[in-house]
Order: sequence, then structure tokens, then C-alpha cells
Amino acid sequence: MSVTYPRGFRACGISAGLRHNGNPDLALIVNDGLIQSAAGVLTSNRVFAAPVAWCREALAGGAVHALVANSACANACTGPEGLADTKAEAGLVAELEGCQQGEVLVASTGIIGQRLEMDKMLPGIRVAHAGLAVGGVADDATSRAIMTTDTRPKTSEKEFHGVRFGGIAKGAGMLAPQLATMLVFITTDAVVDSEQLQEALAPAADITFSRVDSDACMSTNDTVIVMASGASGITLSPEQLREALTAVSGDLARQLVADAEGAHHDVLIQVTGASSTDAAVAVAREVSRSNLVKTAIAGDDPNWGRILSAVGCVPESVAPFDPDLVNVSLNGVTICRGGMIGEDRELVDMTPREVHIDIDLAAGDASGHIWTNDLTHEYVEENSAYTS
Amino acid sequence: MSVTYPRGFRACGISAGLRHNGNPDLALIVNDGLIQSAAGVLTSNRVFAAPVAWCREALAGGAVHALVANSACANACTGPEGLADTKAEAGLVAELEGCQQGEVLVASTGIIGQRLEMDKMLPGIRVAHAGLAVGGVADDATSRAIMTTDTRPKTSEKEFHGVRFGGIAKGAGMLAPQLATMLVFITTDAVVDSEQLQEALAPAADITFSRVDSDACMSTNDTVIVMASGASGITLSPEQLREALTAVSGDLARQLVADAEGAHHDVLIQVTGASSTDAAVAVAREVSRSNLVKTAIAGDDPNWGRILSAVGCVPESVAPFDPDLVNVSLNGVTICRGGMIGEDRELVDMTPREVHIDIDLAAGDASGHIWTNDLTHEYVEENSAYTS
Repeated sequence: MSVTYPRGFRACGISAGLRHNGNPDLALIVNDGLIQSAAGVLTSNRVFAAPVAWCREALAGGAVHALVANSACANACTGPEGLADTKAEAGLVAELEGCQQGEVLVASTGIIGQRLEMDKMLPGIRVAHAGLAVGGVADDATSRAIMTTDTRPKTSEKEFHGVRFGGIAKGAGMLAPQLATMLVFITTDAVVDSEQLQEALAPAADITFSRVDSDACMSTNDTVIVMASGASGITLSPEQLREALTAVSGDLARQLVADAEGAHHDVLIQVTGASSTDAAVAVAREVSRSNLVKTAIAGDDPNWGRILSAVGCVPESVAPFDPDLVNVSLNGVTICRGGMIGEDRELVDMTPREVHIDIDLAAGDASGHIWTNDLTHEYVEENSAYTS
Repeated sequence: MSVTYPRGFRACGISAGLRHNGNPDLALIVNDGLIQSAAGVLTSNRVFAAPVAWCREALAGGAVHALVANSACANACTGPEGLADTKAEAGLVAELEGCQQGEVLVASTGIIGQRLEMDKMLPGIRVAHAGLAVGGVADDATSRAIMTTDTRPKTSEKEFHGVRFGGIAKGAGMLAPQLATMLVFITTDAVVDSEQLQEALAPAADITFSRVDSDACMSTNDTVIVMASGASGITLSPEQLREALTAVSGDLARQLVADAEGAHHDVLIQVTGASSTDAAVAVAREVSRSNLVKTAIAGDDPNWGRILSAVGCVPESVAPFDPDLVNVSLNGVTICRGGMIGEDRELVDMTPREVHIDIDLAAGDASGHIWTNDLTHEYVEENSAYTS
């Protein structure tokens, strides 16, 4: 179970025929609770898809009853016609559920610059609506319907103080965050209004989803949505709510990293001794974006020179530190000490799936991390052999 | 002929045994002219190699008599001992040439975080010194001695108004500019002082070498040096000098792109209609850094959605434009018009080695370009299978 684990939700995933392989490609989630709260974090890309524009407008309304999502087509760069398609989706769900069009969120992921096949999408919505259920096959197919190059569905379910949280996520292009569309849908039966939900979601997403490789560049379709039904009858404190959403988000974010396209290693870049959290994250992000660091890790090569060179590319105004004081550890071995050769690089065991790069800037007490992956042949293959 | 094409220069490349394959790895260039002018552009990376630190100091002195360079080892992240090694190189050349230690520049390229093998380097300098000559094998080996993963030497020779210019360059990791050490040595027999030379070199490098992928991130060792002997007896105007250096630099920069590691396509990203040159270059650079754009091109896929998504990641404060007005052409076909689907992508011929991405922001009259490459299996192979 995932999004229907919290009380008050039904969901269904079906194959509308958008994906040529016959896999599920359309997901519908409905909130049957007395409360119809929702919050969202959407892409900061200036080129954003029609459903993102629509979600911004709908979320501003404060009440969300349902969410429809599809894979195979991003409905991005499709102009006024694309936005009309999104609204038609919301309109049909509203008609079927007897709610307002503005209470239906829409999310899409897939190829940019192609129109959505509405002749498949609209009948598909009717089928999915007829199949709405709690748990079982419908719940499972919901998590699968948003997959693109993902090799497996990502789901999470957690209970905090009697309140349930469920979530699904997709996204498998973590190596190149510019287009790694991340769709995340979280449900909860907490009693909470939309404003409180937003206040809890923003910081939770900031230290989980936004720490997967990069938050500076997002895809045209990145969407993180939380919906609350109130069906538990329980109100959590703001801290408890934030903590719970952080746990669910962290769980899903970690699963996204683990399924990154073609990756052999999940890489945690932890920066300590920074003058600020922003400085720490900026350094970690610079390292996470170095193709030479990523390819070295793919080759199980503990190449700390490439790491230090990436660290040195961060402007002093962003992260003040003295390069001659920087220590770098790879899987626990301090191979660079004081900006120079440290312990023998042969001591580093690069065989584990998870690789830890620890960078101590010796310039303060703040810290921050970024999760990334190695850059492999399989990544190139997945992203060059097929349009996606 | 390359660096000894201008009158007043001798050079020699030899194998000192630093490279395990026996190829040339040590280059020495000597200025025999009455004028000993020099100018340089060095890496802006905060982690910079010992020879870079030394060049900064030596260039400040105003007079440069000789330059010694090696491949196989970057002498970066090697601390005070590494700087002592660099000084020892300069000292030996000074002793052999009867000049000051501060008149000898040093450049290194290769693996970071390893000490230079001085027991090979110092005897090698003596051998190279004995072989100094004009043209012939010595000149040819000079261009080869600075190669690392380069598949061929890059040389240029040009004459402007009776003044000769010669140059050599190395650098083959253009796909990941953070570590694509670029060594460029240009000679000229113009009559010019060091200050005028610097004033001509800086803008020339800015629109040539700095437009190869990215100038925001440089390697620990990037070094562009110009030396003038005055042996032609001719003084060029500042405009002529800048024009000549831009031509030689552009020629060498284009050769660097053409030999980028594992590349199948050379990609020229030209941004027009920008509010400023900086804005245009920022947009071009963002596109050049997108692994998804690079892999799509490697797969001959005219995926304009990935291009537009990268364009949208540039903050409005950096490049103001309306995404709904942006046009994108790929090899002359306007596949994206007004931020939406334009001409049929099937019309794009992706077979030529050179791929042109033209982005019109419709926000002004300024333009700018970046040269980059596609991201291929061979790139991953070169950078994962071997330490470099």
C-alpha cells in the first residue's frame, strides 16, 4: 500500500495506451475525507509544463479533491493547446467526482514538446475512476503508472502518533537533474489545513528531494504534492508534521537515488566545517555535478584530485574556505589532508554500492549534503539511444 | 612549425620518461629575442597547481625568457614540496640559459595529487636544452610533449602584416571543463611590451578558449601564455595584435573541441536576441552543461525539449527573456518556435560532425556562443577506466 494507506483515499492506476509497452501510464488519486487540504512544491524552471501552471493555480485555491497523473508525455512546451488539454483532464475528473475543476491537480511526465493523446487520456480517466479502490492491485498500479525509465516503483508508508502517511514517487534521471522529472504524491489522514501543510512540506522537501543532486535546476515538470484527508481525526504539532513529512520524503528520495539511470553507485557527498548550510550544499552540489568525479566513481577510482578540483570551482563569495585546509575522505579513508596527499588511495574500498565522500572545509560549523550517482555507460545508453 | 615559426624562438620536446608509453612529455621553449615580453591567462580555480602559482609570480616580473612544461603529472595539490619542485625546474633552466629563475615559466598537466618525478624531470630539462632548435623534429615534439589524452597535437601558425605567430595547445576533456587542463603556448616576433601583450591576450582568450564549454570552472592547471621576441622589428597596433591573437587562439580552441575525449559531435551553441553578451553566454553555457542534451546529440536525437528545459534553468536575473518567445534551431531547422513545437524534428540532419544549436531569446540584440561536445560511451570509458 502507498497512497491509500492513509484513511480517506482511493486510487487507481491503469494503462491508457500512452506507453507503447502496455504498462500502467495513468494514475488517479481521490481524497474522500472531510478535509481537502493540499500543498505542493513545483519546478523553478522558467520553462514549465502546462500541468505545473495548472497546479500553481489550483493549489492557490486551497482545496484539492483529486489528482490525475500520466507518464509517456510531459505536456511541456505545448502552448495554449497543452494547457487546454490539462484543463480538460481536470474537468473530466471534476465531472466524475462532482467537485470543482479547480480542485483537481494534474501532473505529467515524459517527452517534452509533444501533445498529450487526449483520445486515450480521457477514456483512460473514466476507466481509472471506475477502478478507484483502497489497497490491492489499484494501489500498486498507481505507483507504477507514473514510472518512465524507473526500473521499479517507489513507495513509502509510515505511521506517526496514529497518523498515517503514504507516498509514491518517480524519477530516475538523477545524474542530470535538469530533466530528471520528479513526481511525488504523498497522502496523509492528518487533520491539517493547506497552509500548515505547505509550511511543513517546504522545509521537508528542501532537505530531501532538493538534496538529490541539485535543486538549482529542475525539470519542466517537477511536482511534489501532499494531500490530507483528516480521516484520522488527529492533529499533529507543526514539528511532528514536518518530521513525518521529512521521513516519508527522505525515504522516497533515497529510493530515487537508488534507481538512478544506469547508476552503479549511490554517492553521498557530505560537506562539514562550512561557514553556512548554503555554502556546504553549494560545495557538495559542485562536486555532484562534475562528470569527471562521476566517471571516476563509475570506474571505482578513488580520484580525490578530481574532487578537490571541483571544490575549488566554488567561488569564495559562495563558500569561504582555505583550500590548503581541506580534508577529503572517501569511504572513511582520508586520502586528502590539508589540500594535499593524505592516506594511501589504495586503502579505499570502492566495492560497496554506497560511496561516501566527506569533505571538511575547516571554515565553520555548518554542514550539508547532496545525493548523487556515478556516470556510467548505461546512463549514456539510456539517454542517447531513446528519446525521453 | 609552431612555436618556432616566429623568429627568435627555439624549442624542443623530449621524452623524460614521465609518460609510461615513451611519448614526449617535456617541452622547453626559449625566447632568444631582444624583447622578452610575456602575458598569461591562468586558471581561476581556487585549487591551483604549483606551476600556476609560480607563473603568477613570474609574469608579474614582466620579463620571460623561457618556458618549461610537462605532461603526465599536474603537480597540483602537492603543497610546499610541489612548489619547490617547480622552482627547481625554473632554476635549472635559468642556470642553463644564464637568465634569472623568475624569467622561466613552468606548466604541468596530468594527474592531480602526485609529486613530479624530479629524478626524471631535471635530467630531461638538460636533454631538451641540448636539443633546442628551430623547426623540424624538435618543434614537432614540443607540441606532442604536452599531450595527455589528446589524440593529436594542436598547432597553429599565422602571419599578420609581416609579424609571425605560432602556437601549440593541449586539452581533450572539453566535456568536463572542471578538469580539462588547457595548456596553450603562443609565440610571436612582434615588437610589444608585456603590458600591451596582456591587454591583447585577455579579450582574445575570453572569446576563444573561455568559450569552449565553460569559463566558469577551470582546472587546477589551465595556462595560456604568450611570449614575444620582437625579432620581426614590427609593431602592430593594439587592434591588429588583438585580432591576430584572437585568430591564433580561435584556431587552437577549435582544434581542442575537435579532439575532445570520445566526442562524436562538435557542438556550436549560438545564442542571439539576448539582452547582453553575458546573458547570451550564460544561456549557451547552461545548455552546454546539460548531460541530457549531450547524450541526446550523441544519439543523433534532435531533442529540443531537453535544450529548452536547460534554457529555462537560467535565472531571470542572469538572462531576462520570455520562454514563450524562444526559438530553437538545430542544424538550420527551427524545431521549436515561440517555446512550442515548430518544424518537424524528422527534418533535422544529425549526421554531420558539427552540430549547430541556434537559440533566439527574442529579448535584445546581443549574442554569444559556447563550443561543446556530445557525451558518449567513449567519454565515460576514457574517464572511468584510467586514472587521469
